[in-house]
This record gives sequence, structure tokens and C-alpha cells, in this order.
Amino acid sequence: MDYAKKALECHGKAHGKLRITPSVPMKDGQDLAVYYTPGVAAPCLAIREDERLASVYTGKDNLVAVVTDGSAILGLGNIGSVAGLPVMEGKAVLFKRFADINAIPICLASQNPEEIIATVKNIAPGFGGINLEDIAAPACFEVERRLKEELQIPVFHDDQHGTAIVTCAALINALKITGRSIENCKIVINGAGAAGSAIAEMLSELGCSSILICDSKGIISKNRKNLSQEKKTLLTFTNLSDTEGTLSDAIKNADVFIGVSAPGCVTEEMVRSMKKDPVVFAMANPEPEIHPALAKKAGAAVIGTGRSDFPNQINNVLVFPGLFRGALDAHASGITKEMMMAAVRALASVIPDSELTAEYIIPDVFNENVVKDIAKAVAGYCI
Amino acid sequence: MDYAKKALECHGKAHGKLRITPSVPMKDGQDLAVYYTPGVAAPCLAIREDERLASVYTGKDNLVAVVTDGSAILGLGNIGSVAGLPVMEGKAVLFKRFADINAIPICLASQNPEEIIATVKNIAPGFGGINLEDIAAPACFEVERRLKEELQIPVFHDDQHGTAIVTCAALINALKITGRSIENCKIVINGAGAAGSAIAEMLSELGCSSILICDSKGIISKNRKNLSQEKKTLLTFTNLSDTEGTLSDAIKNADVFIGVSAPGCVTEEMVRSMKKDPVVFAMANPEPEIHPALAKKAGAAVIGTGRSDFPNQINNVLVFPGLFRGALDAHASGITKEMMMAAVRALASVIPDSELTAEYIIPDVFNENVVKDIAKAVAGYCI
Repeated sequence: MDYAKKALECHGKAHGKLRITPSVPMKDGQDLAVYYTPGVAAPCLAIREDERLASVYTGKDNLVAVVTDGSAILGLGNIGSVAGLPVMEGKAVLFKRFADINAIPICLASQNPEEIIATVKNIAPGFGGINLEDIAAPACFEVERRLKEELQIPVFHDDQHGTAIVTCAALINALKITGRSIENCKIVINGAGAAGSAIAEMLSELGCSSILICDSKGIISKNRKNLSQEKKTLLTFTNLSDTEGTLSDAIKNADVFIGVSAPGCVTEEMVRSMKKDPVVFAMANPEPEIHPALAKKAGAAVIGTGRSDFPNQINNVLVFPGLFRGALDAHASGITKEMMMAAVRALASVIPDSELTAEYIIPDVFNENVVKDIAKAVAGYCI
Repeated sequence: MDYAKKALECHGKAHGKLRITPSVPMKDGQDLAVYYTPGVAAPCLAIREDERLASVYTGKDNLVAVVTDGSAILGLGNIGSVAGLPVMEGKAVLFKRFADINAIPICLASQNPEEIIATVKNIAPGFGGINLEDIAAPACFEVERRLKEELQIPVFHDDQHGTAIVTCAALINALKITGRSIENCKIVINGAGAAGSAIAEMLSELGCSSILICDSKGIISKNRKNLSQEKKTLLTFTNLSDTEGTLSDAIKNADVFIGVSAPGCVTEEMVRSMKKDPVVFAMANPEPEIHPALAKKAGAAVIGTGRSDFPNQINNVLVFPGLFRGALDAHASGITKEMMMAAVRALASVIPDSELTAEYIIPDVFNENVVKDIAKAVAGYCI
């Protein structure tokens, strides 16, 4: 199917994928007096007395801003925030469809981290949560860190943590099938941007001590020159054996390969150099690091991609709706590591062990238990 | 009816007066592939090539931000933007109900004009228009002026120009009934904030050369000390006769009184001191400057207020839906004086001369011709 053609046609007909509609009647002067002046003064004054009443009298707590600066839209790169708007509207559609959350795109004019931070802080009072979307590394790290510190509502950069959560959940199930424990795995990540860094951090959190992370220049190691502060931080929990070399060097004898990088950068030979029955997650979009058929031919026991037309689609949409649903329901003041780990475990557990197969390690996005289970687990860990 | 009690009850049940809903299906993997990845890349790339295509492939052009800093909410004063959120949600309900425009509240954390300007500029790319709401004078003047200059989409401060447009439309009809021409009228405005200043400016535009505008210290005149720059500007087209004194002094022999000030500040005696059959618009909320019954007893020929429970409700909701509808339909790059004057004439003309009476100078907000006529007139003057 030619999705590009169909998408242009359907987007052209829809004139925007969102509508903002009243949830109250407005048919006569009586409605106007109750929901607008003069009646509306009463909830205003009640909220002035106690700001927590905004949860009762307004929709603030169920409204999420999907904020982008357009610097890393899908795999398309820095195409600007207006060109990214179809993605943001799509994200808002998913928020509603899967978690009954009202979400609205906010397309920023600036890609300067300080301006992004100042703007999001300044519009935050009307929102229950902030979903940062498609903001490039390294700016995304500082933007997210500061906003988490300075705001008292959930702030979540989906490209980092959403990807990390869904990847780790899929990996937990892949390791069950291949009879491995994460503590004894050697895991290689290709791609050290927003997603790769967050995946590495979460794998370490899950108990993996043998992680190599590669960027376009090869394995990130102490002896590399001009490493950014973020990459230096990665070295505190990756590459503890001080390995140097290329992706080909890294992947030798690895149990697991996780690609959040570029199409076609993994060869059959590289997969053959891995341990027996390796796990290969080739999540580059739209084309994976290695085609699943080739990975299988080369011996991969479990294969995941980002695509819906292959088995095991490792897709963020499995995470953010339930995570925000849980956080908003619990009136969380932020998204903690504990909440994210709860989401990983809940998502992995949606498929009972007895039903796991090499082609079914992660539930379908339309599986109704996904949001329910994640939301419940996350809410239990809220602060 | 106790609107306060009813409003609290109804707002408590609604949990927010807005819902953001998908306008496209999202029932299976096919929908996901068309409206999200991978299909969504196609409209993104099309917009990157030609940003105008955002009008086709997204809902940007029909989305208005209702922006407040909470500094002048209704007649309640500086209660903060979160306490003002029920008003902003109400406004968004009216945008949708009357003009099928999607509108979303943006509640700012800052009341600093430079920060407001920077924030609105930074979120503007995703919106078709900006409705500034309940921002106090004098900050509102600078904020609106700069945003109009620096953005290429309609920016409108409703408390200034919406009020001015509806007031002038009502006045045009009131003058018809009392057989006056605006050129020969003496008009007194009480209140020199956002609304009063904009009304004065528009009256001058309509041809009135005898305008006195009063603030809490009396008539604004050359000899007053410490006048703000905004008030000095008012003197270039008001008080050309250099009158000094109080509101009582100003109102003597006036044809028209327009109050956008405080409850109860006009007495029967003051109305009696006006010319025969005067026009009295007492628009303070929730209590007018003088109760309509008292104004009538004192001889007022035509009386208007801001309230729905008296005849002649002079309410902004008669203006902003049609004005934005016209501007958005015409892809206007801003709201000009010509567009606003077109709205005044169109609104006044909704009631045929033959149907005008002292108690029917302005159409009901539910009159379907209001938005239609204003939108058409405004679109005709778009730049």
C-alpha cells in the first residue's frame, strides 16, 4: 500500500485531525449565563481561593501540551515545527483514542533551549502535563531536565523515555524466550541520541552491566576525543570494559542488538558474529537497520522493528497514553524513574508468559489492556 | 436565578468545558499507518516544501489561542490565569458554538509584557489567530501592538476592540432611534482602561469630535499631572475643548454616556443633567453604572447594559466569532481598522431599521445572521 499517497489524500480531506468541541450546552441565554457571564465568575473565584479547585472546575488536569521545536521530526530531521504539525496532531489523536486525554499541539518558533524552557514554563499553568516531542539531542536533555525540575506537572520526552520503556518491555519478553537474564547479557545499542541514551540508562537500571553504545564514529569510549557531556555521562554505566572500535567490533558476541540509528547499517555477517540465538531490535524508521528476513537468515532468534508490517512492532504508542493516564489520574507532580520502571514491567506483563512467542513479545497497540495496565501500575508509583 | 450556585454545580459536573477529539478514524493498524507513522511523513514533507500547505494538511488555520495572563479577568481583577481558566474555556466554547472555530485557552504564568510577547510569538506557528483576553491596561496596549507588528496572523485583544465594535454598533442604532448624527453628539466615556480607550478611538473614527473620557480622577485633560503615555494619546482626539472636572461635570449636556467602569457610579441626577432623550450604556459587570430602571426614570431614551437579563445586551460575543471567522476564512495576515469598522457596520445592520426600537438596538447573540454578516463583511476588507 502506498501510505504516502493515501496519507496526503486523507490529510487533505480532514483539514486537521483534531476538533475542539464544547462538552456543555450553549443553546440559549440561560446556558450563556451559567457557562459564561455572569455565572462563570463563581468557579473563577473558587479557584482563586484554592487553586486545586481548577481540577474540579476546569479541564486542565486532563489536558496535555504536545510540544515540539521541529528539530527532529520522525526520521525526517530538522524540518521545522509547522512541517511537524501533522505528527503532533497525530499524537494528540492517539492520546485521545487510547487514553481519553485531551492533547493539543504546540509548535514552537524557536529551537533555542532557553527559549523553549521559558515558553513551556510560561504556558504550563493551563496544562496537566507536557509531552515533549521530536526535539533533537542534545537540546532535548537540558530542556527536559530543567522543565522537570521547574514544573510541578508531568513532563515527558517521549523520544527518550517512551522509546526506552517500550524497548525494555519488549526486551524483557525476548530474553524470556531465549532463556537469558539481563544481568548476564551483552547489549549493543547503535545510536546515541535521545532514544539510544535513554535506552542505555534504562537497561542499566534493569541490571545490565555490559552495555556498549555506538554513535556514527563507533563505540563511545574514554579515549574518544571531543565527547559531549551527555556522552561522557553514558560512560559512567556503559563500556565499563573500555572497549574501542566500530559497530562491527562492538556487536561481536553480543546477546542483544538495539538499533535506533540508520537504515541498513547492520549486515548479516554482523548478526552472525553475535552469540547464538541473538535478539535483534532494528528500529530505524522507515527502513530498519537490517531487514527482518535477513536478520532471521543470519540466525536472530527474536526480531523487532518499528514497523507495523512486521511482527513485534516496538512503538511508543504502547507507552505514552497509559503513562500519562496513570500520572494524570494520580495528580502526579512529575514522571519519576520508578513510574517509568513500573510502566516497563506492566507493558511486558500484558502478554502472559504462556502466550509469548518469538513473533509475539509485545502487545498490539489496539490491545485494550495496554493502557489500563500501564496506567494502574504507574499511578501506584506516583509522587 | 442564582447563577453562581448553578455555575459551580454545572462546572463541577463538566470537568472542563472543552474536549479535543479526533476528526479521523483510528480503529486499526491501517488508520495508524495513514494518520500516524509511516504515512504522516508525506504531509510533513509537503509542508516543509511549501509552508502554505499547512492550511491543507493541518487544522492550524482554524485554531485560535485564547491567551490570558489573568490580570483583568471579567470584572474580578487580577486573579491569575488559572483562576481565569473557566472564562477562557467559556470563550473557546463560544468560538466553536458561534463560528465553528477551534479555540484553546493558553494561561500564562507571567504578567510581564515582554515575556507575554515572547511566549505568544514562540507558540504562534501552530495557530491561525491569537485572541488576547482579559489582559489589564496598560500592558495590553503594548502586548497587542507588538504582536500585531511581529506576527503575520490575526491578533485581537477582545477587551479593547471587541467591546468597542459592539458598543459602536449599538450606538449607531441608538442614534438612529433618537434622531442624532454621531458628528453632532457629545459623548462621555467613563473608564479609560482597555475598553474605554478603544471605544474612544473608534468613536473618533466614526466621526465624533466631542468625546470626553474620564478615569477615576475625572476628565482626562491636558492639565492633569502624571498622565500615562496612553492617556496622553487619548487627548489627541478627545477633550479638544480642554474641559476639566469630574464625571458629573463631563456628563452635563452629553447626548451619550458610555460606562465601562464601576457599578453605581452614575446617579439619576447625572442622567437628568444630560441632553433630552439621552443614550445611556451602563456596561459595568456584573452591576451596571446605573440600574436601567433608574436611568429610564431619569429620562434615558435608550439604555444598554452588559447583562442578559435587561434589554440591549452589549456583549462581545456578538463580535469575536464573526470577526475571526471572516479573518480566518480570508487568510488575513492581521486585523485592520478597516476590518473592525466593517464589523461595526455589519453588526449594526443585522437589525433592519424598520425593526429598531429603544429596547432592540442590538441583535440577540443567538441570531444566526450575526456571525454570517460580520464574517462576510470582514473577509471583504482582509489584507
